[in-house]
Amino acid sequence: MTRITGVRTLDVRAPTSRTLAGSDAVHTDPDYSGAYVFLETDGEHEGVGMTFTIGAGNDLCCAAIQLLAPVVVGLDVDGLLADSAGLWRRLTNHSQLRWLGPEKGVIHLATAALVNAVWDLAAKTAGKPLWQLLADLTPEELVGLVDFRYLTDVLDRDEALDLVRGLAPTRAARVAELRRDGYPAYLTSAGWLGYPEDKVRDLTRAALADGWSCFKTKVGVDVASDVRRCELMREEIGDLPLMADANQVWDVGQAIEWMRHLEPFGLRWIEEPTSPDDVLGHAAIRRAVAPVGVATGEHAMNRVVFKQLLQAEAIDYCQIDACRLGGVNEVLAVLLLAAKFGVPVCPHAGGLALCEYVQHLSIVDYVCVSGSLDDRTTEFADHLHEHFVHPALVRDGRYVVPDAPGYSADLHPASIDALTFPSGSEWR
Amino acid sequence: MTRITGVRTLDVRAPTSRTLAGSDAVHTDPDYSGAYVFLETDGEHEGVGMTFTIGAGNDLCCAAIQLLAPVVVGLDVDGLLADSAGLWRRLTNHSQLRWLGPEKGVIHLATAALVNAVWDLAAKTAGKPLWQLLADLTPEELVGLVDFRYLTDVLDRDEALDLVRGLAPTRAARVAELRRDGYPAYLTSAGWLGYPEDKVRDLTRAALADGWSCFKTKVGVDVASDVRRCELMREEIGDLPLMADANQVWDVGQAIEWMRHLEPFGLRWIEEPTSPDDVLGHAAIRRAVAPVGVATGEHAMNRVVFKQLLQAEAIDYCQIDACRLGGVNEVLAVLLLAAKFGVPVCPHAGGLALCEYVQHLSIVDYVCVSGSLDDRTTEFADHLHEHFVHPALVRDGRYVVPDAPGYSADLHPASIDALTFPSGSEWR
Repeated sequence: MTRITGVRTLDVRAPTSRTLAGSDAVHTDPDYSGAYVFLETDGEHEGVGMTFTIGAGNDLCCAAIQLLAPVVVGLDVDGLLADSAGLWRRLTNHSQLRWLGPEKGVIHLATAALVNAVWDLAAKTAGKPLWQLLADLTPEELVGLVDFRYLTDVLDRDEALDLVRGLAPTRAARVAELRRDGYPAYLTSAGWLGYPEDKVRDLTRAALADGWSCFKTKVGVDVASDVRRCELMREEIGDLPLMADANQVWDVGQAIEWMRHLEPFGLRWIEEPTSPDDVLGHAAIRRAVAPVGVATGEHAMNRVVFKQLLQAEAIDYCQIDACRLGGVNEVLAVLLLAAKFGVPVCPHAGGLALCEYVQHLSIVDYVCVSGSLDDRTTEFADHLHEHFVHPALVRDGRYVVPDAPGYSADLHPASIDALTFPSGSEWR
Repeated sequence: MTRITGVRTLDVRAPTSRTLAGSDAVHTDPDYSGAYVFLETDGEHEGVGMTFTIGAGNDLCCAAIQLLAPVVVGLDVDGLLADSAGLWRRLTNHSQLRWLGPEKGVIHLATAALVNAVWDLAAKTAGKPLWQLLADLTPEELVGLVDFRYLTDVLDRDEALDLVRGLAPTRAARVAELRRDGYPAYLTSAGWLGYPEDKVRDLTRAALADGWSCFKTKVGVDVASDVRRCELMREEIGDLPLMADANQVWDVGQAIEWMRHLEPFGLRWIEEPTSPDDVLGHAAIRRAVAPVGVATGEHAMNRVVFKQLLQAEAIDYCQIDACRLGGVNEVLAVLLLAAKFGVPVCPHAGGLALCEYVQHLSIVDYVCVSGSLDDRTTEFADHLHEHFVHPALVRDGRYVVPDAPGYSADLHPASIDALTFPSGSEWR
């Protein structure tokens, strides 16, 4: 029997604020970071997981992971899948630590890192990429991973099981399709808000040449500059889909007013138009800005918020985050909720390891849960991938199905040496 | 000019889990704790603030306070009131730390501690108890303390100002009334869930003899035991108001079903019947369990959640928490929201320093914001007050108006020696 024998954490930060990569209306100087966790075992594999932050406070997530660590130390690696929902419940319902959330903020980010590490370990042990480990589960096993607490007024186990069972016979065909064509993606990295217009234009042209066909830009600092930026993007990309991301900068009325100015640009969605906690506010904005869609989720802290966004008809696009939600198990809950409501899941990515993570989740969504690619597209940003042993690959604007065993967050040793905070070579 | 010169933190924990004081259906072994912050100055006074936790992770809050400390170090003490809303915005919108929330979890609990310390320092400097410092402000100054971001679709500065101005001429009469009669309170400490029935009965009898006339009990572990406990309480207190607190233990449908069994007991409210994040769930429960009221708020993480609870008509009682919300400024925002919707504010207390804190907030609510005591009652639990230099006082079931300058969280030096974790005498 192989056991988890210890938990190591590492504060990893990339100095992205020096180039303004990742900058937006609210996060003006992000250092894309990961609170990493390594599950040590007495066996062949180590589990690697992380949660994403943008710099300061990454150390708090590492410390929170250590407080939760006793919940996983001693677990049998081969039995991780058997009681995965139970493990998730124990992590999120520690009788004292839950006061710090519950299921939100630092303690939930830490939960995500640990849960993601557990899944990495399970996938490496099985010798499969994470998406395949999940896609090889029976419907009963897959739905059994979800903690339905607080969801049963909208979706219970039986209904979820019906949904997943209906798609099981055709899973293999969808896997083959994705292996052939890849999973549709869109590009954010041409439009970081800190970039001057010339740079945005050059990056957009380069992306078109690389085969990209779906783009997003940051907006929200001033109307005139947003209009110019959307004009510029439309000049370059023609009628290809264009989205805009306000990163929570507006009040509800202000979002509605501001979006009138962006009407000429035929945006597919406006992302995070207001507080990520404001379900009813998103619903009001959605009613006002149609046919532009409303997208949110990278800061939607747990499945209960997503449940309400869907109940209130507040979103057209459901943007799960692999690290904001409490890891794979809670993401799966949200995939099921979105499928029930017929809302496409378009994961948030772009941050350190987020592209590496969400490629697996989008594949699972298509193969096992939604069965559809309609209106689906997964975010991609073209930076920091050089640090990963198995980086996310994109070809002609589509994610290539990953094949390496695990959940793809392993860093190169040289990157660890460079990015460890504050002792790494990038920070000394 | 007096300046804030440094920030010290202290991890203070009371070993309440040894007696099960504070225990409920979800928090089975709480050690009531405070992440304390001391604002050092080059003047006469030190600002003392804290946020409340129930043990593990209190150190994370201390660490988060230190990350936010640079925002307050160097500030002019005499000018703290002039830009209080601006300071609050800077604390909650740190360009990197806000990713850890925003406005939720550990980073928001830390914000609360710092904001509360700033107010303690301002009140001590003014030589007034906090409630009086606030009650002596003009309507413009009082409303100027609030950051209306994300609230303006429901309440803006002008409307808030109208509300506060209308009550300004009669403030003095309400202060005199409270000085004479105190502020209405209810008692929780007879009904902690870990207490055996005999102990609950004895404590209830003693409380009645002390003049208490409003009670709350914990419920939610099993129906039969809840029924017995409510029967017991009714036997002892007759027709006096009785409330029940489920501490988030139920799903929506389960809450509705469970409450049918408690119908005979004429409960005034059911508190936290489900996830604190589930606005729409609370609304559904409220529609189903009337005439029993729905109360929540001790885990409602920020003003945006309270805004929606009120918009969705999800609550009959608004239970602000002095430390879950981002301190005095955000509490004031919620008092204004509740007043607009005509929903009574009945603060959460009972935890370390929470009674000491909320007495000030309830007074400000009555004197400046709501102008009403109808259906208002503020929680009290009769433990841990011995640690405070100026403990909350209750007489005949009503809070006595505090008179000492500051915000009442100062601990006795002997209590600091005993409760400091892990080096204090209680923990060694």
